[in-house]
Parts: sequence; C-alpha cells; structure tokens
Amino acid sequence: MSSYAARRTALRAELRAANLDALLVTNLLNVRYLTGFTGSNAAVLVGADGDDATVFCTDGRYLTQSAKQVPDLRRVVDRPCDVALVKNAKGRVGFESHHVTVDGLEGLLQAAGQAELVRAGGLVETLRLVKDETEIEALRMACAAADRALAALIGHGGLRAGRTERDVARELESRMLDHGAEGPSFSSIVAFGANSAVPHHRPTDAVLQQGDFIKFDFGALVGGYHSDMTRMLVLGKPADWQRDLYDLVARSQAAGRAALGPGVEVSAVDRASREVIEKAGHGNEFVHGLGHGVGLEIHEAPALSKAGAGTLSAGMAVTVEPGVYLSGRGGVRIEDTLVVRESGPELLTLTTKELVVV
Amino acid sequence: MSSYAARRTALRAELRAANLDALLVTNLLNVRYLTGFTGSNAAVLVGADGDDATVFCTDGRYLTQSAKQVPDLRRVVDRPCDVALVKNAKGRVGFESHHVTVDGLEGLLQAAGQAELVRAGGLVETLRLVKDETEIEALRMACAAADRALAALIGHGGLRAGRTERDVARELESRMLDHGAEGPSFSSIVAFGANSAVPHHRPTDAVLQQGDFIKFDFGALVGGYHSDMTRMLVLGKPADWQRDLYDLVARSQAAGRAALGPGVEVSAVDRASREVIEKAGHGNEFVHGLGHGVGLEIHEAPALSKAGAGTLSAGMAVTVEPGVYLSGRGGVRIEDTLVVRESGPELLTLTTKELVVV
Repeated sequence: MSSYAARRTALRAELRAANLDALLVTNLLNVRYLTGFTGSNAAVLVGADGDDATVFCTDGRYLTQSAKQVPDLRRVVDRPCDVALVKNAKGRVGFESHHVTVDGLEGLLQAAGQAELVRAGGLVETLRLVKDETEIEALRMACAAADRALAALIGHGGLRAGRTERDVARELESRMLDHGAEGPSFSSIVAFGANSAVPHHRPTDAVLQQGDFIKFDFGALVGGYHSDMTRMLVLGKPADWQRDLYDLVARSQAAGRAALGPGVEVSAVDRASREVIEKAGHGNEFVHGLGHGVGLEIHEAPALSKAGAGTLSAGMAVTVEPGVYLSGRGGVRIEDTLVVRESGPELLTLTTKELVVV
Repeated sequence: MSSYAARRTALRAELRAANLDALLVTNLLNVRYLTGFTGSNAAVLVGADGDDATVFCTDGRYLTQSAKQVPDLRRVVDRPCDVALVKNAKGRVGFESHHVTVDGLEGLLQAAGQAELVRAGGLVETLRLVKDETEIEALRMACAAADRALAALIGHGGLRAGRTERDVARELESRMLDHGAEGPSFSSIVAFGANSAVPHHRPTDAVLQQGDFIKFDFGALVGGYHSDMTRMLVLGKPADWQRDLYDLVARSQAAGRAALGPGVEVSAVDRASREVIEKAGHGNEFVHGLGHGVGLEIHEAPALSKAGAGTLSAGMAVTVEPGVYLSGRGGVRIEDTLVVRESGPELLTLTTKELVVV
C-alpha cells in the first residue's frame, strides 16, 4: 500500500469515530498529504467505505500531472472542485470548517444534493501530527540540504567583513538550491551584530564587522517538507559576554531536547528549557515559545510553549529553539529540528552547536 | 492625505451603502492595502465615521514596524487580532465572509459583545479593482525589474545550447533580485522546445537545443505588487511553422490589447483576441482565458474570459495573454501587463514582442 493510501485508511478511522460517510478535503496541503497531488487546484472526497467510495477532483490544467501523481483514485475534472465533489456526495459529509470560508460554505450548501454537510475541522491535521517514515525521510533531506548549504557558505569564505546580511542570505538560499532544495522553507533570517537581538530580523544592508554575532535562522524545502535550524557564529574572537550568553542558551536548548519524549506534556518541554534561562536571570528576554511542529507547513501543531496543551507522541517532528535577546547588543537563539522517538529524540539538523568562530 | 487614508475614505462610501457601522478587515492583503502594514499578523476595524473610529491591531512582534508603517491609526496589540477588535466593536459590523472561515466566524460570534456581525465579502476587493497611481507606479517598477532581468539574461549569453530550464529559471530569478525585485511574483515558467506546449510547465532538467522555442512566463514582485509577462524566443533560425504560429498569436494579442478600454465588456476583449485564433483554425488549442487582473495578488479580478461578466474601468491593471499549444510540438503565448486608460491602454511590460532569435 502506498503511504497515501495508508493515510486515507487511517483517516477512515477518524471518519467512523465522527459518524461521517465521507470527508470533503479542500485544504490543498491535506489533499497533498492524502493523495500526493502537488498542483494548485484540487479536492478529494474521502469515503468512509474505502477508496472505491473516494473521488479526486482537479481541473483541466492538471490532466497529465494528476494521472501520474494520483493513479489510484477515481478522478473528476471540473471547476470548482469542492462544488463538483459535493454535488454527487451522499450521507453525512464532513467539511473542513477551519478552512472553508463562510461564503464557500454557502456555495457548498447550494450544490449539495443528497449530502448533509457537517462541520469537521482539523481531522487531517490530527493525523499529520505524527509523521510516517516517508515524511521523516523528506524532513531528513530538507535538514541535510540546509546543513550542507551552511557548510558550503562558510567553507567558501562567504562570511567576511564587509558583506551585507542581504548578500549572505541570498548566497545561503542559492546554496540550498545547489544542495537539492526546492526553495527556502521561509524567508531566511541573517542578522549581524546588534540585529541578532531582533527575534525575526529580516536581512538588511547592514555590513558584517569583526566581533559581530552572526545569526542564521533558515531552512530548506524538500518534497514539500520544511526544515528549520538556527545557528550562531562570531566573526573573529568572541567577547566574554558573547560566550556566556551562548553557553547559557546552549544549556537551555540541550535541556529542551533532553525533555522530548512520548507522553511528555508540551508545556513541560518548554519549562525544562526555560528554567535554565530563568535561573540565570534572563527569563524576560526569552520572549517566545520553545518550538513548534514542522512538516508540510513551517509552523504546525504541536506548539511547545508555556500555555501549550497536550502531550508528545513518537513520530512528531518539532523544533527546539530557546533564545535570549539583549536589545541593542545582541541575541542568541539555537534551534534544531528533531523527531520524537521512543528511544530518545532523533536529531535531523546535524550542524555543530559549538559557537563557530570564522 | 496618504494613499492609505484615501483608500479608507473610499471604503467608507461602501460601508454606508451597505448600512454598516464598521468593517472588520482580516484578509492581510486588504489590511496592507488600507494601512500599509506588511507584517504577517494584523487586522483593522474600519469605522464608517472616520479614522477616529478606526482601530488597527497587530501582535507584540510588530511594535516597531507597525508604529512606523501605520502611524496614523489607533493601535491595539493583542492576539488573535480579529477577536481583539470585535470585542470592543459596536453596531452593525461587516466581516469578510469570503475570507473568514466557518470556525473563525464561530470565534468572532463568541467574542462579539455589542456588535452585530454581518456578511460583507469582497468590499475591499471591489476597491482594489481600480488601481490608484501609487499602485500603478509599483506595478511599473515590478514590470521594469522583469524587463531588465530578461534583457540581462539574454545580453550575458544566458541562453545557450546545453543549459537546462532549471538553470535558466534560476538565473532569471537571480537577475530579478539584481534589478530591485523583492522576489519572483510566482514560480517562473521556463520551457524549451516541445515543453512550450504545456501551458503551465515547471522548469525541468530539459536541455536547450538549436531550433527550440524558449518560453518565459515570469514576473517580479516590487512593493507587494506583481508583474506578469510572457515572451518567446528561438535558439537559432526559426522554422516556418514557428514563425507562423508566433505571428498568429502576436496578431491575436495585439487585437486583445487594442480592445481594452473603459466601459468595454471583459468578454468582448477575450472575443477580440480569440476570434483571430479561431479564424486560423486553432480555437481548440487556445485552452485558457485571455487574461486576469494583477496587483497585490498575481491573479485577481477582473477575469478576461469568454464567460467573464462586467466591464473594464480606467485604472484596472490586467494581463493579455493568448496562447496556442500544439501538443508534443510546441506552443506560443505572448503576454503583457497593461493599465486600462481613457486614452488607450498603458503598456507596462516593455520588452519587445518581436520573436527574438538568439
């Protein structure tokens, strides 16, 4: 069975639990997850009774592509797809109420013949929380592309005094493409010196100078999956305060990673990491949550934060990324992408977490 | 008055016509259009009585940025923004029903104290149909970045036998950045030889060969505005069938451009261009609409198509892009971005429409 068919089978258990005859999946990422289709317009009606009761829909632009990517499902070619599928649906049909708009629902209700439309938000997202091995392999490749790009940037002398953040970000993104990425997984953050104190700094024309912190927060996209990694470097000899700040965040990050495990509350992971920083008196300068899930989206569930609810399961892919930001001076964040495993977290971002001096 | 304040004033006429006391704007592009804010989380409650009754909301990450970009509106810093704004709203408050999800509306209804929530989809999009001169200037700069990038690619010998579509697309996108683009306005289409017959071909490892058609469909993003242009070239001497096909599409495209004007039905523009191709016996191979609006989105209203309804107005920015696709052989599309003007369409994509031979 393909991993897509296996995911549809898993979804059917959710459908039966919700007493649904079918689920109309219109969120394109969920369509991709369930069918492998990567085009820009599609929907799938997943029948509770099996793939014989499941119909995929796309439009005429994607005849060849959908035949290749979705060979195993009955296909309708029409537009708009949600309306086309609901017209011929029967019974209790769930719709993705976290994705369908108020106007969109009106259109569905008008088109629905024999179907009773039922709110069913987040069913596929619940499945997506736990990654299968196909997904983890894609994440592994995405993390590897980012690791290699950063190594190549440093190895080829890309970090030298006088270069701008914008230049360096562009080279880093170009090197990710060289190493197999479909693109960056989000707009790369490259911050020099005091700019490193801005958590989500966007690259500017600021120029790299001796003694600067260099913060990279970036990732690669491979097979639709996103990697996410933050690393810190210093150009020249680090000052004592830079070493101290770095060591503190590194200890916090290690404590967060060590706390990951099946059955652990997400808030407990945040706490394990945050306590280290709080004890050092920098709690107020750790201004964000500890981490987030990654997969087909760069930010997805679960959120690892103080207020987060729920527990981790084996197969979840998450980031661990504590940070301390000293406004006007500099900040440190260290981030890995990891998979929760029974035997302890699997690290996917392999670049060293020593403070790299260039 | 800033162009943002002027747009809010224009929106108020729509609010009064719909008997609304305020509009809760949650579509981020509409927020940007009305306030100039470019961050990733915001909403604005536009009061019918003026900017004194208008409130902007974003979260703590954007304190500095929003103070700079939106100095002229009262600000709330909270999360989620839609709920924060609706809590303190009063009277008949419209919400963007084409954008708010079914689950999102439930959250708004729970939060709404003294506000009566009313469906009000597409009000801002209606204003966005007609571009003001600030917007047209951004489109002009986006088109110029694309023009210059293509010229630089060709001028520096970027089109030579043996290069792959992927290589050339990457160089083109890099050159757009060199010429001031924030990025490509969509994934660039570069198609060689028979691949040019696939309307939305994605770049592959196919190699450029003597005699190949080369199709570029690409654009640049500047100030949030998207350009869109398709140009055709041939490597070496064009064959007769290539010249003939090209000339046909060029005549069709010229007829479409000539038909643009205030008060003209969008379907009539499509017809003017399509007739030329139909008369030549290729009607079945022109498989898409003639064009679309461009602005803060790469595809927005109005659609120029057979089935399109409505008429053009001065200040609308649209593409004109007929194509004929001979499967397995090659296809031609020629596309400009233009502004509808009283005095005739203003051409923004300036690259020659002669068949370029390299």
